[in-house]
Amino acid sequence: MSYSEEDRAATLLTRLREQKPLIHHITNMVVMNDTANITLAIGALPVMAHALEEVEEMVNLAEALVLNIGTLDPRQVESMLRAGKRANERSIPIVLDPVGAGATRLRTQTSLQLLNELRISVLRGNAAEVAALVGVTSETRGVESISVAEDRETIAHRAAKEFGCIVVITGAQDLISNGNRMAKVDNGHPLLASITGSGCMSTSLVGAFLAIEPDPLYAATTALMVMGLAGEFAAPKAGGPGTFRSHLLDAVAGMNEEAIVRGQKVSFA
Amino acid sequence: MSYSEEDRAATLLTRLREQKPLIHHITNMVVMNDTANITLAIGALPVMAHALEEVEEMVNLAEALVLNIGTLDPRQVESMLRAGKRANERSIPIVLDPVGAGATRLRTQTSLQLLNELRISVLRGNAAEVAALVGVTSETRGVESISVAEDRETIAHRAAKEFGCIVVITGAQDLISNGNRMAKVDNGHPLLASITGSGCMSTSLVGAFLAIEPDPLYAATTALMVMGLAGEFAAPKAGGPGTFRSHLLDAVAGMNEEAIVRGQKVSFA
Amino acid sequence: MSYSEEDRAATLLTRLREQKPLIHHITNMVVMNDTANITLAIGALPVMAHALEEVEEMVNLAEALVLNIGTLDPRQVESMLRAGKRANERSIPIVLDPVGAGATRLRTQTSLQLLNELRISVLRGNAAEVAALVGVTSETRGVESISVAEDRETIAHRAAKEFGCIVVITGAQDLISNGNRMAKVDNGHPLLASITGSGCMSTSLVGAFLAIEPDPLYAATTALMVMGLAGEFAAPKAGGPGTFRSHLLDAVAGMNEEAIVRGQKVSFA
Repeated sequence: MSYSEEDRAATLLTRLREQKPLIHHITNMVVMNDTANITLAIGALPVMAHALEEVEEMVNLAEALVLNIGTLDPRQVESMLRAGKRANERSIPIVLDPVGAGATRLRTQTSLQLLNELRISVLRGNAAEVAALVGVTSETRGVESISVAEDRETIAHRAAKEFGCIVVITGAQDLISNGNRMAKVDNGHPLLASITGSGCMSTSLVGAFLAIEPDPLYAATTALMVMGLAGEFAAPKAGGPGTFRSHLLDAVAGMNEEAIVRGQKVSFA
Repeated sequence: MSYSEEDRAATLLTRLREQKPLIHHITNMVVMNDTANITLAIGALPVMAHALEEVEEMVNLAEALVLNIGTLDPRQVESMLRAGKRANERSIPIVLDPVGAGATRLRTQTSLQLLNELRISVLRGNAAEVAALVGVTSETRGVESISVAEDRETIAHRAAKEFGCIVVITGAQDLISNGNRMAKVDNGHPLLASITGSGCMSTSLVGAFLAIEPDPLYAATTALMVMGLAGEFAAPKAGGPGTFRSHLLDAVAGMNEEAIVRGQKVSFA
Repeated sequence: MSYSEEDRAATLLTRLREQKPLIHHITNMVVMNDTANITLAIGALPVMAHALEEVEEMVNLAEALVLNIGTLDPRQVESMLRAGKRANERSIPIVLDPVGAGATRLRTQTSLQLLNELRISVLRGNAAEVAALVGVTSETRGVESISVAEDRETIAHRAAKEFGCIVVITGAQDLISNGNRMAKVDNGHPLLASITGSGCMSTSLVGAFLAIEPDPLYAATTALMVMGLAGEFAAPKAGGPGTFRSHLLDAVAGMNEEAIVRGQKVSFA
């Protein structure tokens, strides 16, 4: 980032904590607690609601919608579509986490259906998930990305163009593309890959920043940088994945402007 | 509390740990792990079961029933009604947590339906949730209470009279009303509001104390005092919400009679 | 264990971490996060998927299947049967955790149905759950085992013969029977019983070792020994159940060959 951009990211965090946006999640059962807690830790308010009978009303109260298909079933997908359409009517941003796309047809097709029927602001996945959605061969193990036939930057740009949204591919280096411009985040720590749901937690942070920042490329980049930086702060205090997970939440809650300005490793191309 | 009341609270904890009551939860997916763990930590046994086909049988084994609508759907509500009716037949106490009442009609109406069709012993919510159930205007953000048009004490008393049960409004100061008498708990710590589910965990503790104490005002007051005190013990050890959550469970498990007698801040009016 | 057996257990862990098998879970909502995290910590890859529309495809990618009925409902049971039949066709091992068998008819009958209609490699439960499945009277409290009319060894052997699979009964001493031979694991710590889901986490470890070791008696014994040893390592660092849970995951992730060779307390009879 340039100096002004570092400053902007720091300001974003301050604005988020002042506005305390409500982030409506329709998400998976594995990480629901972690995603609620990280949303609180960054300064936003999480709400989890999936009943068809209430999702539109809940979207009416929210500033962003997070859709995560990690433990999807057809009824939940119906709720996601209904909530997403209401979010589009209200012009609040949607972030989609296509957990396991490429692993089963249900996951690939559901992700594509949500991308086609809704205006998604940000798609965040690992390389294999995003590759699967643009028809690129990859090797996955369940919901884990192993290797991908094309380079990650090409896939990010292609997906961003094809779906008309910001695409985030997370990994050792996080890529954020709008189809033309690419941001790269080098913050992070290997322990982030040792716990379940660190990707899902990143998606929740993207939702929180999207809620208060109209530029989705910038919002997503800031979210990934904050997540990576929190991982860097948490790792030295951790004895392994269990204690890391606790310290990660502490680090997100303790994140501040100065830490961002000093610690961010973001480049735009 | 008067000296004898402090003593009674301490004795309650000892009795709870001797009796190890089984607490049947039909609860939300966000906090299910935390509520099970805090139930174990206080010395009771949690069981989570929601299938229509087994809830009555599980209630037959239980000493208290916790109903929490945090991630409700119509089938779960049907299970709650069925379990609740069996609990009433067996005369075991029910505690209701109306998560998000006021935020959507489904949540408000479900809470009122459960209050009308079942004999609830204790209703525990934040100020906005309880206000919504007695028709008082409030400002909420999803499941968070922001401000309420009337003072909290008036709302607690009114709800207790209207629903004929003990009403607990948690916050910086916890209020426990039976419609005439009011207990106030000043134990607690701001970090309790930094994690998701601290309210739900309090509700589980209320269920545990209700299971072994026939006076519901006293049981609920003791539960809230123990939760607040545990927060006070956990906070100095925590670096933020992630580590606080771990230390909170440690503190509940380590709670003892002496700590209660010395640390409780309860007044009855 | 004899020297060669200690060595074999240590080698098993190394092999597990090299092969990183995918473990498909259809499991309960209380412990889903913990079971995913412990699967990652031991070096395998967890995937949670329960939709009828995708379970067979997910089994096609997996090296073992974990079925856990802790928060069962009839639709989930249908998914378990479908996934299990596909696992049998592919000859990948299945481990079944009959949470709460004996507490309700739904749980007992579902466990028996899964044991009858599927070829299960390992059944892991507490004494009361396993006793219930072979018709032995016991006292349970919800999903907790209190006392059992017959001795645990007899029940383990009888269940192993009746169901034609390895039977694990966990407790202060873990028993692993194939109907004739019995392994006993004396590793462990009382704090393991203070957190919800330590049994379910053991089941996930059994699944991980089953995925890479064709001898199910040996795989299950190693899994239980690793879990107990991790509890021993975590306990001195813990201030109670909350911090113990974090240190337990750290200890599983940090487990290594040397620690196993030195610390294991396994005997075969």
